[in-house]
Amino acid sequence: MNHPWQDPDRTPLARAEALLAQLTLEEKLAQLGSIWPGSDTGAEDTDVAPLQHQVSNGQPDLADLLPHGLGQLTRPFGTLPVDPTEKAKLLAEDQRRIVAAGRFGIPALAHEECLTGFTAWQATIFPTPLAWGATFHPELVEHAARLIGESMRSVGIHQGLSPVLDVARDPRWGRTEETIGEDPYLVATVATGYVRGLESAGVVATLKHFVGYSASHAGRNHAPVAIGPRELADLLLPPFELALRDGGARSVMAAYNDLDGVPASADPELLTGLLREEWGFTGTVVSDYFGISFLEVNHGVAGSPGEAAALALAAGVDVELPAQRAYGPPLLAAVRAGEVAEELVDRSVLRVLTQKAELGLLDADYSPEPAAVCDGERVDLDPPAMRAVARQLAEESVILLANRDGALPLADTARIAVAGPLADAVAPLLGCYTFPRHVGVQHPELPLGVAVPTLFEALAAELPTARVTRATSAAETAGADVVVAVVGDRSGLFGRGTSGEGCDAADLELPDGQGALLDELVAGEVPVVLVALTGRPYALGRWADRLAGVVQAFFPGEEGAGAVAGVLSGRLNPSGRLPIGVPRGSGGQPANYLAPPLGQAGEASNLDPTPLYPFGHGIGYTDFAWTDPAVSAATVATDGEVTVALTVTNTGDRDGTEVVQLYLHDPVARIARPVNRLVGYARVPLAAGASARVSFAFHADLAGYTPTPGRRIVDPGALELRLGASVADLRHTLPLTVTGPERRLGHDRRMTCPATITPATGA
Amino acid sequence: MNHPWQDPDRTPLARAEALLAQLTLEEKLAQLGSIWPGSDTGAEDTDVAPLQHQVSNGQPDLADLLPHGLGQLTRPFGTLPVDPTEKAKLLAEDQRRIVAAGRFGIPALAHEECLTGFTAWQATIFPTPLAWGATFHPELVEHAARLIGESMRSVGIHQGLSPVLDVARDPRWGRTEETIGEDPYLVATVATGYVRGLESAGVVATLKHFVGYSASHAGRNHAPVAIGPRELADLLLPPFELALRDGGARSVMAAYNDLDGVPASADPELLTGLLREEWGFTGTVVSDYFGISFLEVNHGVAGSPGEAAALALAAGVDVELPAQRAYGPPLLAAVRAGEVAEELVDRSVLRVLTQKAELGLLDADYSPEPAAVCDGERVDLDPPAMRAVARQLAEESVILLANRDGALPLADTARIAVAGPLADAVAPLLGCYTFPRHVGVQHPELPLGVAVPTLFEALAAELPTARVTRATSAAETAGADVVVAVVGDRSGLFGRGTSGEGCDAADLELPDGQGALLDELVAGEVPVVLVALTGRPYALGRWADRLAGVVQAFFPGEEGAGAVAGVLSGRLNPSGRLPIGVPRGSGGQPANYLAPPLGQAGEASNLDPTPLYPFGHGIGYTDFAWTDPAVSAATVATDGEVTVALTVTNTGDRDGTEVVQLYLHDPVARIARPVNRLVGYARVPLAAGASARVSFAFHADLAGYTPTPGRRIVDPGALELRLGASVADLRHTLPLTVTGPERRLGHDRRMTCPATITPATGA
Repeated sequence: MNHPWQDPDRTPLARAEALLAQLTLEEKLAQLGSIWPGSDTGAEDTDVAPLQHQVSNGQPDLADLLPHGLGQLTRPFGTLPVDPTEKAKLLAEDQRRIVAAGRFGIPALAHEECLTGFTAWQATIFPTPLAWGATFHPELVEHAARLIGESMRSVGIHQGLSPVLDVARDPRWGRTEETIGEDPYLVATVATGYVRGLESAGVVATLKHFVGYSASHAGRNHAPVAIGPRELADLLLPPFELALRDGGARSVMAAYNDLDGVPASADPELLTGLLREEWGFTGTVVSDYFGISFLEVNHGVAGSPGEAAALALAAGVDVELPAQRAYGPPLLAAVRAGEVAEELVDRSVLRVLTQKAELGLLDADYSPEPAAVCDGERVDLDPPAMRAVARQLAEESVILLANRDGALPLADTARIAVAGPLADAVAPLLGCYTFPRHVGVQHPELPLGVAVPTLFEALAAELPTARVTRATSAAETAGADVVVAVVGDRSGLFGRGTSGEGCDAADLELPDGQGALLDELVAGEVPVVLVALTGRPYALGRWADRLAGVVQAFFPGEEGAGAVAGVLSGRLNPSGRLPIGVPRGSGGQPANYLAPPLGQAGEASNLDPTPLYPFGHGIGYTDFAWTDPAVSAATVATDGEVTVALTVTNTGDRDGTEVVQLYLHDPVARIARPVNRLVGYARVPLAAGASARVSFAFHADLAGYTPTPGRRIVDPGALELRLGASVADLRHTLPLTVTGPERRLGHDRRMTCPATITPATGA
Repeated sequence: MNHPWQDPDRTPLARAEALLAQLTLEEKLAQLGSIWPGSDTGAEDTDVAPLQHQVSNGQPDLADLLPHGLGQLTRPFGTLPVDPTEKAKLLAEDQRRIVAAGRFGIPALAHEECLTGFTAWQATIFPTPLAWGATFHPELVEHAARLIGESMRSVGIHQGLSPVLDVARDPRWGRTEETIGEDPYLVATVATGYVRGLESAGVVATLKHFVGYSASHAGRNHAPVAIGPRELADLLLPPFELALRDGGARSVMAAYNDLDGVPASADPELLTGLLREEWGFTGTVVSDYFGISFLEVNHGVAGSPGEAAALALAAGVDVELPAQRAYGPPLLAAVRAGEVAEELVDRSVLRVLTQKAELGLLDADYSPEPAAVCDGERVDLDPPAMRAVARQLAEESVILLANRDGALPLADTARIAVAGPLADAVAPLLGCYTFPRHVGVQHPELPLGVAVPTLFEALAAELPTARVTRATSAAETAGADVVVAVVGDRSGLFGRGTSGEGCDAADLELPDGQGALLDELVAGEVPVVLVALTGRPYALGRWADRLAGVVQAFFPGEEGAGAVAGVLSGRLNPSGRLPIGVPRGSGGQPANYLAPPLGQAGEASNLDPTPLYPFGHGIGYTDFAWTDPAVSAATVATDGEVTVALTVTNTGDRDGTEVVQLYLHDPVARIARPVNRLVGYARVPLAAGASARVSFAFHADLAGYTPTPGRRIVDPGALELRLGASVADLRHTLPLTVTGPERRLGHDRRMTCPATITPATGA
């Protein structure tokens, strides 16, 4: 006989309510915590979460926790190198113990990192999110995320701590590589693709970091965030809103940082008022790792673990990750003492149990054996189908920034000197949340687990008839026809790399002194093609005039070297576009494109923040004509829609892809507004000679903004719709007048500007 | 017979009301404007205000304006080089014309810049405000300001556009030199001294820039300000509040910048809600130069000059400076069209006329002849008494940052090689608002107007028995006993210098390649003493370990070279303390000392923002013992006061001055709070061997902060009072528990912590 909470005819919420009613306080709190086996290394230099060694003071044994149950299991695959097949079996065994030990047989929800693919040994390594942004291709990102989710689900994982929806605000921040770029519309749409993919595989997507994390002072990780409510509403929140509403994400991670002094993890207006009451979110809010303890030890807003727990719980943090600390005995004591209302505990437990019900974890026929294990076969986390998608994503993410006098593609008979200390390393291909960089570096004897050709290897393979040699100085490039100068980052955690979490940059000079090598190379006679394999944009202005070509790829993953080599050889016609500007000089940050006039170059300051290569920039090996721009009406009501269209023609002699970008300019508003901001884009593949009509459905909601905190409006007045190949290459401007009464916009507003592409007669 | 507005028995307000009732709309608007003769140069490279050549499109002739009267006269002395005696007479003539031409004989109010002294040719050049901050000596600044005000009043000037109350938030900002430092308490107290001095001379002090200007993105002048209400309330507003309340300033200048998208000049909550209604301010709000036009041309919140005028007027900007533009015909048309209520015009005119009544400009016996002119003598704007105060201020502002192995003082028989391209220039002694740098640079034939010895000259004169030579490279230092390496800024406007308004820095590398010279010098055999004569702190970490001594002076003015030479020779025992930290590296900004734990060095980021020399640091040629710290009670009520005291003893063999700093640490608060913040300080001069008891009256109000926008509170809990010689050299910590109910603080709260110094028996 089924218990009520096992009844498939009831809603997940009803099942959760039935179960909640049965639980003791200890059993409830157990559902709000996690355990992180294998993490208690006790040494700072192996931390994978900030202050892990300091606050993770002795993990309780799993056996001690079991009598009351367990909410979550932290990173079974992503903590230590483990054979996936073996680990899948061990995880199932742990689940069996958990189910058997509790009164109600509730399995734990197992979570993992999965930003660039499943962060597990031998799993496919996809490009980093900044590369996703470069593709301007949410559907492809969705496809990749679906495969990632399926592989995680197949080994018993329920929740993925991805994607990152922070909008890059200062490229000095080490986690810039984890962002999708500097534009909230691009971040929102691409991240929503990722969320759809992961959720479609049955894995809970976790939106992080809610919110403001990317806007820390000077890009220093965890530093305070100076921000006002308008910037928050119009720049940082929309990606979360879209990914929840249109992506269906079921979890949100509270951010480490404070905003104007208020820690996000202790802010009820944010986690409850906005997220739950205004946006209607019903999933779980999880803490960032040790984020609840940080309220005590870092933010100084709590005097004890119990006070930290009380603040976080009241604000709306449901689950403490990665291990039970504040939500364990301290919260238990606080509830027992009457300092925390048990109703707050119930509120969070209900959300956790509802999610477990949705995931099938409360079903009477629940079995811990996931599909992959039941098959009795070896688990393959890097099958050819996933490598193929990783390759496509990498290929579409490579950005050709400059190409002088046809230096590229490289001739297949060229003598090519490949310079740069990282040209034959895998490091500059892999982001910080890949298993090799996140965990593997602490196990130097461990094989990579997946095949990752280096750029040198890939280029030699790409051009078998060329003479590809390695050069370690300018002298060694003599006799070559061209130098391919590879500069790059080494991603790592907490100072163990040049990019990644806790690897911030004081300025945007190329890391590891690689600028000096470039100085040397461009001083020589041989033309230099620069290939930047990095996690953030670096200042390239010092060399820009003396480089024959510039290629940028942001940690493109296991298939990334082949993708870059394919662009260099001309096998691939590059179609990536910058998701973030590449600056001219190394100082002067932050400097975002989304700035009002006084944030741009002007007479009030000697400094010019204009980037060397602007947001949206990228060229290829063919040319496109942009003709016949049109808007379907000269006016639009504040609740109306118009169609903005143009014809794009591939006027070159090879197939290629153009990325049409639609920017909005609002000349007079109630507050200072960005001169240009992206409100739509379309990836347009075109055979040589072919044409297409690209139409955007532009709704007046897209012109909305937040002049008064808490009140987003669209108001009447003149606008300009600007069609561009980058924010600095605006090809056509179409005036549009918004008419009618000012309108207030809510959570149901239009947030995207869908594009349709129709084949058209060529020019 | 007197008119009612001339009646000395009425209040200024009543007189203004009586006059207002007589005025036509045109006459009213005339009182809200100004004219700026001599400013219409038409060329960008001579602008002294941003966009001057662009928006100052043709000045009307004075004669055309006269029929309706004239509110202000802009910078009669500070625009072009003029003989002060002649100009005083010409100004009186202009006033006679203005009085004669209007129906009511209302003179104009004449304003000038006076940040480092009266910005006029031949006027005393005082140290820049950052140097005032270094003195920790508000009473001396007050004295200087009184003399400045008296000299201005003596030639017919009524209002001075000083001081700057912006708290330095990013030293890359070119106007950092104009700030008093990075700490709001220091800025507030020192600026209030300046205000008292200027106002005591009968000159209207103008608090600028209200508010937020210093917190622009990346320190780029005029760039947007990302800030929330708590940071605004607790860091940026208090200096303005104290200078109004305790200083009695009668004018406030609305800032150029936006805050979170809202231009300060169009913000009624700021200019009316906070300033007038909450703080009770009754003086005038003036625009920054062309700041009203900027609402249209830069901020994009107005579509026309008339809309810009309407926004500014409604927000609370009373007077348009420097010339009538938006408040002229455009505002007239808007009022006529019923788009702007005439009551808003009246509100501002009443404030202007009230101020004119206070200044005696409405008196029946008003005479335009100021005292200096009536005397019939030559005007001397740089008399010995003013030079003496400029010298004392300079002397107290020189900061000895490091002194290794007794390298300083220099021996009077030493062979001293003086290096650095600016060692024999006056530029690195003079701030951007000195007449020579602000105006004089555009008149290269013009003599400086005042005697300004260079450091090389001063050092040679200081040490007549030493051998002081000039070295332009390291090779030329051979044979010397010591190198004095002088590095410095050249202040200027809008890209014409390395510091100053519109001369921002992308990073904190020493300007003009002076770091390379320093590299060269420290590589040699001869010990190097660095003297930095700059407008902002620069990164010195690269050389710190190899320098025998480091002296910092911030644009110390006409007597500054002698002050620095006196410190080098040992004639003076230095007592300056850093009003802003000197960073180790050139990147990583902003990084202020007033940061919560996560804004300090920590494990979450590889970057360490700790400065090389912290806020409050400075050493001298004697030693001090800090003993017997005590607090008068272990607890204090939320509305109570305790006394914090310690004994300071000069244990060395020469007289000197210690600066005792009182910092507050609040371990647990409702929001993230600075780890340490200055709440009191005392300058303690002590003869060799002497002791003094230093007592601070610490009121619980000083522990107040603003956890909720608009609500400043003091709450119960544990505090630590920390007595330090810098924020990083905390000598004694005294615990104090605040008890009682949470208390809300208003405009009448205690904002300072007065110190008393009592001679005590020596140790």
